Amino acid sequence: MNLTRAVVGVVLGRVLANREAAGRKIGTVEAVPAMGLDAVASSAYGPEAALTILAPLGAAGLVQLGWITAPILVLLGVLYASYRQIVRAYPSNGGAYTVSKANLGARTSLLAATALMIDYVLNVAVGISAGVGALTSALPALHPYTLALCLAILAVVTLANLRGTPEAGWLFALPTYLFIASFGVVLALGVVKTLAAGGHPAPLVPPPALPAATGAVTAWLLVRAFASGCTAMTGVEAVSNGVDAFRGPVVAHGHRTLSAICGVLGLLLAGIAVTVIAYRVGAMDQTRAGYQSVLSQLTAAVVGRSPFYFVAIGSLLCVLALSANTSFVGFPRLCRLVAEDDYLPRPFAVVGRRLVFSVGILYLAASAGVLLVVFDGITDRLIPLFAVGAFLAFTLSQTGMVVHWRRALRGRGAARLDRVRLVINGVGAATTGAALIVIVIAKFAEGAWITVLVVPCVILLLTRVKRYYARLEARLAGGGALALGGIEAPIVLVTAEAWNRAVRRAVTFALRLSREVWVVHCSNADGPDVPEKRSLRCDWRENVERPAKAAGLPPPRLVLLPAPYRRLQGPLLKLIQATERRYPSRVIAVLIPEVIKRSWWEHLLHTRRAASLRRALLRYGGSRTVVIDFPWYLEEPKRDEALDDQAPDAAPRSSKRSTA
Amino acid sequence: MNLTRAVVGVVLGRVLANREAAGRKIGTVEAVPAMGLDAVASSAYGPEAALTILAPLGAAGLVQLGWITAPILVLLGVLYASYRQIVRAYPSNGGAYTVSKANLGARTSLLAATALMIDYVLNVAVGISAGVGALTSALPALHPYTLALCLAILAVVTLANLRGTPEAGWLFALPTYLFIASFGVVLALGVVKTLAAGGHPAPLVPPPALPAATGAVTAWLLVRAFASGCTAMTGVEAVSNGVDAFRGPVVAHGHRTLSAICGVLGLLLAGIAVTVIAYRVGAMDQTRAGYQSVLSQLTAAVVGRSPFYFVAIGSLLCVLALSANTSFVGFPRLCRLVAEDDYLPRPFAVVGRRLVFSVGILYLAASAGVLLVVFDGITDRLIPLFAVGAFLAFTLSQTGMVVHWRRALRGRGAARLDRVRLVINGVGAATTGAALIVIVIAKFAEGAWITVLVVPCVILLLTRVKRYYARLEARLAGGGALALGGIEAPIVLVTAEAWNRAVRRAVTFALRLSREVWVVHCSNADGPDVPEKRSLRCDWRENVERPAKAAGLPPPRLVLLPAPYRRLQGPLLKLIQATERRYPSRVIAVLIPEVIKRSWWEHLLHTRRAASLRRALLRYGGSRTVVIDFPWYLEEPKRDEALDDQAPDAAPRSSKRSTA
Repeated sequence: MNLTRAVVGVVLGRVLANREAAGRKIGTVEAVPAMGLDAVASSAYGPEAALTILAPLGAAGLVQLGWITAPILVLLGVLYASYRQIVRAYPSNGGAYTVSKANLGARTSLLAATALMIDYVLNVAVGISAGVGALTSALPALHPYTLALCLAILAVVTLANLRGTPEAGWLFALPTYLFIASFGVVLALGVVKTLAAGGHPAPLVPPPALPAATGAVTAWLLVRAFASGCTAMTGVEAVSNGVDAFRGPVVAHGHRTLSAICGVLGLLLAGIAVTVIAYRVGAMDQTRAGYQSVLSQLTAAVVGRSPFYFVAIGSLLCVLALSANTSFVGFPRLCRLVAEDDYLPRPFAVVGRRLVFSVGILYLAASAGVLLVVFDGITDRLIPLFAVGAFLAFTLSQTGMVVHWRRALRGRGAARLDRVRLVINGVGAATTGAALIVIVIAKFAEGAWITVLVVPCVILLLTRVKRYYARLEARLAGGGALALGGIEAPIVLVTAEAWNRAVRRAVTFALRLSREVWVVHCSNADGPDVPEKRSLRCDWRENVERPAKAAGLPPPRLVLLPAPYRRLQGPLLKLIQATERRYPSRVIAVLIPEVIKRSWWEHLLHTRRAASLRRALLRYGGSRTVVIDFPWYLEEPKRDEALDDQAPDAAPRSSKRSTA
Repeated sequence: MNLTRAVVGVVLGRVLANREAAGRKIGTVEAVPAMGLDAVASSAYGPEAALTILAPLGAAGLVQLGWITAPILVLLGVLYASYRQIVRAYPSNGGAYTVSKANLGARTSLLAATALMIDYVLNVAVGISAGVGALTSALPALHPYTLALCLAILAVVTLANLRGTPEAGWLFALPTYLFIASFGVVLALGVVKTLAAGGHPAPLVPPPALPAATGAVTAWLLVRAFASGCTAMTGVEAVSNGVDAFRGPVVAHGHRTLSAICGVLGLLLAGIAVTVIAYRVGAMDQTRAGYQSVLSQLTAAVVGRSPFYFVAIGSLLCVLALSANTSFVGFPRLCRLVAEDDYLPRPFAVVGRRLVFSVGILYLAASAGVLLVVFDGITDRLIPLFAVGAFLAFTLSQTGMVVHWRRALRGRGAARLDRVRLVINGVGAATTGAALIVIVIAKFAEGAWITVLVVPCVILLLTRVKRYYARLEARLAGGGALALGGIEAPIVLVTAEAWNRAVRRAVTFALRLSREVWVVHCSNADGPDVPEKRSLRCDWRENVERPAKAAGLPPPRLVLLPAPYRRLQGPLLKLIQATERRYPSRVIAVLIPEVIKRSWWEHLLHTRRAASLRRALLRYGGSRTVVIDFPWYLEEPKRDEALDDQAPDAAPRSSKRSTA
């Protein structure tokens, strides 16, 4: 027991006190890696996804990439402006769930929550498997260990998040900033070289020749390429979902983080589009040998296979694999909000030992782990599915904000700035809604139908949970005043196998509670062939009746119950039933003396009779039956042991100071 | 919950009452398959093991088989005579453990128990893997599924034994009697043909030619062949270990069963020796392709590859695979005896739902399963190990009987019959002891050293268990008379998250127990960012203080405890500690209102707070802290559900009649 606790202490760290919460909040520098990993990593697969759709056009497809990236950048700009406003308007938490709950009603908010939850789970599985996929294509020797690598990364990310944000920070900060810096250099160099060479720079390592065109440009093709390219924007909503992770001033940190993430993402997307066209880089078939990703070809073309290439690609792999972390920031916070509204089980709202929502983290890890195992570590096919969730959330939160500003306008009269804000969010809602429709249609056959199927099931589950809590609250509500008329002591039933010290103490205690104490002994509980070794009757008069009479108490009754099926619960429940009928106003308290076990092996040395009797009595006993657990110790416990996992008071105070 | 119960009911059958025990006892016809499978199956590998050792002698080895079988048959006769006496002298249970406990002392009995337990576990693993080995050599297509087949057979045997003897009977009876009948026919035919042909019968399918001799006859070789051949006798002790499974007259059934088993085994061994020599059958190398067992060669030689051959070999496979069953009869009974003497955990002595010792059965299955998995289903190398255990048990029980008769002779003067009995058991002890020494020496390098190492470890474990129980008994013993001076009601602490109906009922109940009731509310238990939604203070005066005063009771105190670490146990234990210091003579009862969950999913919807608080209080609270579980039901439970898995009274009575 103490060993377990020590191991948990080392792995997860000591229990944190509530007052240490302020020290666990983050600023912009920590927030960019924590919340931006997913968005930044999107730049690695968004343009490539669009180029894959454009591949049949051959070289002509390259030019189209520009036409697709432009609206994506515009959309990103609109999203940026919209989310700035959301962060300001909902500084405690501005996720799609909160915004649509406040403005569009409970039902729509469930749709937003479901879309986000599916999105988060998929993002973990897809991010990790994409990262490991990139790694194993760089080092084919690792290919047989794909699933094991996926699960190992999942475990590391989960553990880091269970420990909490500041500790997890460095793990995610290093690769993120390295990725931004190195690709910033690559793309800047590429653009400069392109300008210097008049649009046709000479690649250091020439990318493979583009295949010949096999099709013509059609509107449908462009729409599909756009829908695929939109995956580059997933993750932008993370900041609004995680505002409560910021330290004060919350809005300022939120805005700065959002600006940094959108700025970096926009620059990366624009830079990639320009250099890809200039260096004539195309998407290759991932299922064929010799596959190289678009960014790998591009980097090699710009800087050659220098050490710098390997640093850049290495940071890219890390960013992809760790992009799952964004879900770990958002998902538990979202689940907490939903659980506080009684749509998810309450454990999701319980703050764990490290001030994080451990149940949400573990649930996310488990779901993603199941996906990884089921798909054997190759979940790339799920990528189209999760753009649907993200854009559904985008649309719902923008629409919610439109309603928000319209109400504000109606309420306070014409505030000019609010009208501008209404327009911004309106444009955001319209464009993301349009993109959502395009994505659903374009990706329907590829898997978007799964999302369309799963969403109503999840919503049904959420409403069922709510219904249970509503029923519970209705039953519990209205405590009202105590009704103390005709208050009577309970009848106390003490279960006993033999007359020993534990039972003697139990009977003494029972006599403190009530003048009506029955000692219940089940005969034949040991089985058919066993002679009744221990008997209670022998010293009853001497040990029980005489002392009780001497103390002026009515002597306890001895009740011998046959237990033909060797289990005590049946005969005891029958006795309780009969007693309740005879004494309709009395409560029956069953006192169970139990040897307390300190180590795991002590549990093996005792039968589970006391525990299973207790469970049966609580489950079937009814409102008028109460169970009293009467402990018997081989050695008196040391209470300090129970308290020593709480840190000395000095530690939290100093950590508070360091963050102030 | 009810689904689980229904499934268990179908798989294991209904719960049996104690009074049905008589109907679960068996007679000779059922006992021969139940207790004799191991012994009868031994004839399949004992002679073959001896022949394998003799293989280097070539054709000359065949003649030596006769010289080895003769002393084995003599030893079998001595064992038969000895065990008849044991069954009569110990008609309740005459296993090596009981006999040596009664005559040689507790320490020696532990040695016997350990030897038997190891023997039983090995027998299960070896029997099943040998059977499956024979099956896969007959049908090589099944070879990749060796481990799965082993575990499937283990599961079937385990389930049959968990259901209990009569139900398991038919499963084991059919192959056993088929095996005895078909090999009886084969061997009788072989002997008749041999006699008719003057010692040199013409085989229908000639066995492979014997290899040329590569060595000479040495005493050491013969001793090793004898030691290997002795494995043919394992399982003979099963009857004496399982006497309490018989219905009355116990001794008569025991003697008949023992006679049947030893008679069949002796005839099989003798017949095999005669026909093997006549038909010139040798042991083949099991690791080479085309391997055929001795009995397979012999059967083919006598009756050809007729359908009869396949029936005989099929029954042999079943008997080998099911020979594990003998362990399932003996092991749980042995463990029960040892557990009743406090050397094994008490759950081993608990009679399960089908009047069998379920824990022993499950433990045996688990240990054998681990062995099978570790050795990947090929545990044939363990065969030499388990002859050691069997012969150690033989020797100890015979020696015990020698002491028994000597005491009897000393006690009652010279009873002539007892002197004969003393001689019989003396001869048995001497011969099995000699055989044991031979086996340990001959098999030491092959694996007997493992047994020699494991035995002291197991004995150490057994004595440790005993020491724990002795300490527990010493603490519990001497109940003595109640001491009721200065009896005071406890201080009752009611934990409450909010003022609701459950808490109101709990406080009302607490006031039935004591005039000193404190309602304890932990603030900040939900975490740092959560506003204290539910407060107890609001209606305290109106709902609690006024009604209490009106009823003439001291109003309950409201105690607000800060829970900086969000867990209630720490602050509550501190409060209990302080309270105990202030009121040194009072007991503190903590009343925990808890919502009772009926289905598994309800457990997911609630936090584990009440349960973990209860556990911490019982573990660390100390002798003066008691926990009261106060149930709160969403719906009043139906008590009948708890009682309905007990069969109507008619059923057991009819089953009683059918076995009378």
